[in-house]
Amino acid sequence: VSSHQPINSTEKACMLRPLEAPFRYLFGPGPSNVPPRILAAGGRPIIGHMHSEMFGIMNDIKKGIQYAFQTSNNMTLAMSGSGHTAMECAVFNIVEPGESVLVAINGIWGERVAEIAERMGAKVHTLFKTPGGHFTNAEIEQALAKHKPVLFFLAHGESSSGLVHPVDGVGDICHKYNCLLLVDSVASLGAAPLLMDQQNIDILYTGSQKALNAPPGTAPISFSERACHKMFNRKTKPVSYLLDMTHLSNYWGNDGKPERKYHHTGPVSGFFALRESLAILAEMGLENSWSHHTEVAEYLWKGLEDLGLKLFIKDKDLRLPSVTTIAIPEGYDWKELLAYIMKHHQIEFTGGLGPSVGMVLRIGLMGYNCNKANAAMALAALEDALKQCRKSKA
Amino acid sequence: VSSHQPINSTEKACMLRPLEAPFRYLFGPGPSNVPPRILAAGGRPIIGHMHSEMFGIMNDIKKGIQYAFQTSNNMTLAMSGSGHTAMECAVFNIVEPGESVLVAINGIWGERVAEIAERMGAKVHTLFKTPGGHFTNAEIEQALAKHKPVLFFLAHGESSSGLVHPVDGVGDICHKYNCLLLVDSVASLGAAPLLMDQQNIDILYTGSQKALNAPPGTAPISFSERACHKMFNRKTKPVSYLLDMTHLSNYWGNDGKPERKYHHTGPVSGFFALRESLAILAEMGLENSWSHHTEVAEYLWKGLEDLGLKLFIKDKDLRLPSVTTIAIPEGYDWKELLAYIMKHHQIEFTGGLGPSVGMVLRIGLMGYNCNKANAAMALAALEDALKQCRKSKA
Repeated sequence: VSSHQPINSTEKACMLRPLEAPFRYLFGPGPSNVPPRILAAGGRPIIGHMHSEMFGIMNDIKKGIQYAFQTSNNMTLAMSGSGHTAMECAVFNIVEPGESVLVAINGIWGERVAEIAERMGAKVHTLFKTPGGHFTNAEIEQALAKHKPVLFFLAHGESSSGLVHPVDGVGDICHKYNCLLLVDSVASLGAAPLLMDQQNIDILYTGSQKALNAPPGTAPISFSERACHKMFNRKTKPVSYLLDMTHLSNYWGNDGKPERKYHHTGPVSGFFALRESLAILAEMGLENSWSHHTEVAEYLWKGLEDLGLKLFIKDKDLRLPSVTTIAIPEGYDWKELLAYIMKHHQIEFTGGLGPSVGMVLRIGLMGYNCNKANAAMALAALEDALKQCRKSKA
Repeated sequence: VSSHQPINSTEKACMLRPLEAPFRYLFGPGPSNVPPRILAAGGRPIIGHMHSEMFGIMNDIKKGIQYAFQTSNNMTLAMSGSGHTAMECAVFNIVEPGESVLVAINGIWGERVAEIAERMGAKVHTLFKTPGGHFTNAEIEQALAKHKPVLFFLAHGESSSGLVHPVDGVGDICHKYNCLLLVDSVASLGAAPLLMDQQNIDILYTGSQKALNAPPGTAPISFSERACHKMFNRKTKPVSYLLDMTHLSNYWGNDGKPERKYHHTGPVSGFFALRESLAILAEMGLENSWSHHTEVAEYLWKGLEDLGLKLFIKDKDLRLPSVTTIAIPEGYDWKELLAYIMKHHQIEFTGGLGPSVGMVLRIGLMGYNCNKANAAMALAALEDALKQCRKSKA
């Protein structure tokens, strides 16, 4: 070994081909297409993760998230990772081993939070509905009274079922039982109304790659003062050093200390892109973004019903405007439909996810992708596939 | 709340300014400048994280890492995160609570691994040297015999002190004591010889933003069969769902199963950029990359000594070619030197990190940044600063 001669390998030869990636309409539940303006921001020459200009950009991101979340929380930042990183960060920092957690499961996201909380040693209780179902405030209150959790999880945008969950009043009920409310808005932010402060949400997170149209890899998150009180007065250290909010709050300049210390190296290009995506949302305005998503979704829903398809979520008010779920039509193989549309129309739709696999097809039109021309293109592709892929009745 | 009227806020106004980021020579210990070719790859329109073409790109990344690491390990992949993510992934997956871990601390990286291992419930033992020190194989063997750890950590590229640690023979000693060898090559990969298989390293990781010149946010990692045997036969689940190698190995197509299931959304743009950076290294060839870094480093070292400066690592063979540490010259305030060079030359050098703060200045010339013209520019900037920043003897 002392000579340190590398082996020549086929691995090397394999890397001498150029990078290839096709253009594709990403009309699934995300990532969605990234507009040129955000791609250009992410493709700019980088600066150091601890340069003062970078801290300025991070301060802008914080403001942009405060606007998008409708919160004045000081403890607002972006995770260096996808929505799952924010999910783990919330649970790891808020909950101590042995504490009780209540998770509303009506699709994949609740399943994931329950798994994360179990692994770090929480006592996990669940409220359960099959995909498409939702929870009444009375059901939630009953479970809070019974299990006395320190944290209650609810997915606002349940993208695996296409449901947007009512949030009004849930925060107040949680606080009555001395419980913090954690809400997932990965699929709903910018598409469906959500007001963190007015709705008394304690921890809210989202992803970069849905209606925000940035590449995946960053995840906005915010903590209320109540949540900060719990997480900064714990007896044990969070199990992850990387996700420890004591360090992350310093990195984001949220802890009031004069100096930001090195914790980890944040995704500089990802933060450039995220800043641009939050700027676009601020320019458009939240109200406009919400009403625009609703308008395009209603156009899509009408078109789908005109094709004879059944929407999976019956109640219009509970339909997620960003991700529409369609009951798989009888006489079709859903995988064949998706493959046909991908092959002949360069369009991605997807099937279900987790418990909704085999139940639904999903069409996502989010942010940059959300307009009637794209909805019409999606409908035409689906119409073609329905003609071509019908199974003969054996 | 039922009306869902957003508040208008100053946060929104703040986001209407354009993104600004200066051009800067990143001659610190990383991130280093990203060449146009890699920026362009990272700025391409994205595809879905589960599309077959994306799996093809991930397969290429795997080959590129196998080449860069000089390993034929099947369990080779890139983390969706920075080097710290790889560090936590290694410890979380290999070690179970209550097991013994030995950490060589001669700078910040050992400190971090010890902290991570303690949080997840390992019994942590340390071997300690002040920054700049290194460990003999006899010292390592003595500690292995005493503490019987399941894992031994060593930083190959100790960037906080500028030391490249000898690795020859360490793997064999570890295996003699039934211990796995975990090596950090974040700062050294591509700059100093390292041969994972020949040197019997069980877990090796690096970062994307050093000699690979990709933006920060992805981290190559590889596990030997011995490491896989330990991590896939554990009694408890790793504490992190996000970093669980059972799921990550499936996402990367390394588990032999026919279907890759959704785990998390990987950083698509980051993977595009990482693939390009690994392709550049393969095109250049590892031997050339190593000798080139050594040649430029020797040119820099000579120039620094000609300026009357003292290199922090006395033994030339123990100096990291990618990151050079200089003892802070008498009669100067190191912060003032760095600020002067940044302001007047648009060049980033840095001070120490963790235990080496106040001991050293650091100059990094890595990958794309590694050439004699840049070394000459760095030397000229430093010469200027030494003239302008001398303190009067009070």
